[in-house]
Amino acid sequence: MRLATLNDGSLDGRLILVSQDGRHATTAPASTLIGALQNWTQAEPALRECAAALEAGKAATLAFDPQRCAAPLPRSPQWLDASAFLNHGRLMETAFGTPPIPDFDTVPVMYQGASDDFLGPHANVPLPSEADGIDFEGEFGVIVGEVPLGASPTQALAAVRLLVQLNDWSLRALGQREVRTGFGFLQAKPSTAFAPFAVTPDELGPAWSDGRLRLRLHIEWNGERFGEPSAAPMNFHFGQLIAHAARTRRLRAGTLIGSGTVSNVERAAGSACIAERRMIEKIDLGEVRSGFMRFGDRVRMEARFENGEPGPFGVLDQRVVDAGRPA
Amino acid sequence: MRLATLNDGSLDGRLILVSQDGRHATTAPASTLIGALQNWTQAEPALRECAAALEAGKAATLAFDPQRCAAPLPRSPQWLDASAFLNHGRLMETAFGTPPIPDFDTVPVMYQGASDDFLGPHANVPLPSEADGIDFEGEFGVIVGEVPLGASPTQALAAVRLLVQLNDWSLRALGQREVRTGFGFLQAKPSTAFAPFAVTPDELGPAWSDGRLRLRLHIEWNGERFGEPSAAPMNFHFGQLIAHAARTRRLRAGTLIGSGTVSNVERAAGSACIAERRMIEKIDLGEVRSGFMRFGDRVRMEARFENGEPGPFGVLDQRVVDAGRPA
Repeated sequence: MRLATLNDGSLDGRLILVSQDGRHATTAPASTLIGALQNWTQAEPALRECAAALEAGKAATLAFDPQRCAAPLPRSPQWLDASAFLNHGRLMETAFGTPPIPDFDTVPVMYQGASDDFLGPHANVPLPSEADGIDFEGEFGVIVGEVPLGASPTQALAAVRLLVQLNDWSLRALGQREVRTGFGFLQAKPSTAFAPFAVTPDELGPAWSDGRLRLRLHIEWNGERFGEPSAAPMNFHFGQLIAHAARTRRLRAGTLIGSGTVSNVERAAGSACIAERRMIEKIDLGEVRSGFMRFGDRVRMEARFENGEPGPFGVLDQRVVDAGRPA
Repeated sequence: MRLATLNDGSLDGRLILVSQDGRHATTAPASTLIGALQNWTQAEPALRECAAALEAGKAATLAFDPQRCAAPLPRSPQWLDASAFLNHGRLMETAFGTPPIPDFDTVPVMYQGASDDFLGPHANVPLPSEADGIDFEGEFGVIVGEVPLGASPTQALAAVRLLVQLNDWSLRALGQREVRTGFGFLQAKPSTAFAPFAVTPDELGPAWSDGRLRLRLHIEWNGERFGEPSAAPMNFHFGQLIAHAARTRRLRAGTLIGSGTVSNVERAAGSACIAERRMIEKIDLGEVRSGFMRFGDRVRMEARFENGEPGPFGVLDQRVVDAGRPA
C-alpha cells in the first residue's frame, strides 16, 4: 500500500492512495496520515480495501501528479535521526575533526530534528547562504505507531507502520560547530524532505527483513551519477533505533526514525552525501576536490531494488534556492 | 492574561482563562492554545475580552483546580532549549568533563527536545531508573508566533506571544554520554513539564524587559529550600535565542524557546538543578555531597517577583515515580 499526501495548504495535507504503477490515485478513507496512524487498527483495513479497489479499477481516480505532493507525513510528533551506518559516522568524525564517539559500535547515536515543517519531493529548498556548506543526505526511515517507554528492539520493530525515503538536508559549516558544542544539530538542519510515498512494509517483500531495507539509493547531483549505496549493511536495525529512542520516554503514533546517511565501505558504491565524498577524496587522493552545493543545484534520489527495478517510494528531486531572493 | 489548558484526554486539551487571583476560570473563546496561536491576530482580542469579563465577574465561571491542568501548550511544533545562563553552562562543562565550547559567550548553544508530550504541573514523572541521574532544571520559556527564516533578534522578540515557566527534566548519566557524541540530548531528556499558566508579557509589567524576566525561581526539593536564582542576568535575551533558532528555518506559531537552567554567579542564590549544586560542592567543599533524585522525591518550583510576591505562572510541583511499577 502506497500512501501520499496532497499539499492542500493545511498543515497535515490530504491523504491519498496511489496505484502500483504510480499513475492513479484515489482519496483515502482517512483525511490525514497522522489521523490514520493514531487510529491504525481501524484505519489500516479500510485503507487496504480502498487500495485494492484502486488496483482493480473500481475506485474513483484522479491523475497522480507528484509535483502536488507534500511529504507523506507533513509534520510528525518527533523526528529522530540516527547514524546507523558506521562507515558514514567514522568518515564524518574525520570531517568534523571530532574525537571518536565512545560506544559507537554498540549504542546508536541519534539527534532530534525539527518535525513540524517537512518538505515535499519537489519543493524548492530555501537556504540563507552557500557559505553554510549545503549538503544532501540520502536516507531511509520508518514511521511507528505508539511505542511504550522501555520497549525492546523486538517490540519496537513490531510498531513499524510505514517506510519512507528522505533527504536530511544539512549545512556542514554550521554542523561542525554544533557537534562540538555537544548540544547537537539545529541550525545545521533545515527542513527535511521526503519522497512522495510512505509504504507499508509488505510493499518491499523480502527487501524488508531484519529491520533493514535491501535497496540501493541512487543519487544524482545536477544530473550526474553520485552514488548508489545499499541500505542492507545498516549496522543497527530499525528495531534497535526505535528502542533507543524509547528508552526514557514513550513515542507517539507518527514518530519518525531515520537511518542516517546510507553508506557502504566499498568505494565503488559512491556516497549519499557530499561531506562523505570529500573525506574519501582527502583520504584516497590527498585533497578535497568536491565543493558543496550552490544555489540552483539539484539533487535527485530514487531507491531501487537490488535487481535495478524502481523501489516503492517514488522520486525525490529538489532544487536549492536563495532564501533571501524572492522566486 | 493567564491561559491554562485542562487535560480532557485529547492531545491539545481544552483552553481556559484563569482569573488574577487564580481561583476562577472560564472557557476560552478558542478551543485550544495552539489554535489561538495560529490565528493570534483574531484570537487575542477575543481572549482579552473574555479575560476582562472574568475579572469583572461577568463570565460563567468554573472553580479552578491546577491538578486538572495539562501543560498550557500540551504539544508544540518545536521545543528548542538554550543554555543562556553562562554560569550554568560553565559549571556543566566541568560536570560533563567536556572541553570548553567555542564562541560560548557570543553564540547561544541550543538543543532540540521532544515537543509532542509535555507534562502538566502536577503530573507524576515516570522514569525507568534512579541510576540515570534524575535531575530537575528550573527554567523560563517563550512561545512565539510565526518567525520567518533569518529574523533579526528585534524581529524575533516582537514575535513573543506568551511566557511560561518549566522544568526541563534531565537524566545526567545519559546526558554525559550524549553530549560527548556531539548529537545532543535525547535519552537524557524525558518529557518536559510546565507550570499551569502561560501568560501574556504584560502580566509581568516591568519584570519583562529587554527580552528577559526579572523574576526569581524558588525551588524546593522534598520540601527543603534548594535555591531562588534570578532570571534577570540571562546572558542572551529571548530575541537572540529565537533569532538563533530561525537562522536556517522558519518557526511555526507555537514554537517554544527555553532559557536553559536559571543560574547566578552568587552562591547565596542556590541553584535550579542538582548537577550544578554538585559541581559547586566539588569546587567549594572539595567533594560532591548531594545525590540525584530518588523515586518518590518531589520538586516544587514557583517564580516570584523581586519583592517576593508570587509570579504569574502558578506552581509546578511533581513527583518522580518508577516507570516500571504500576501506580
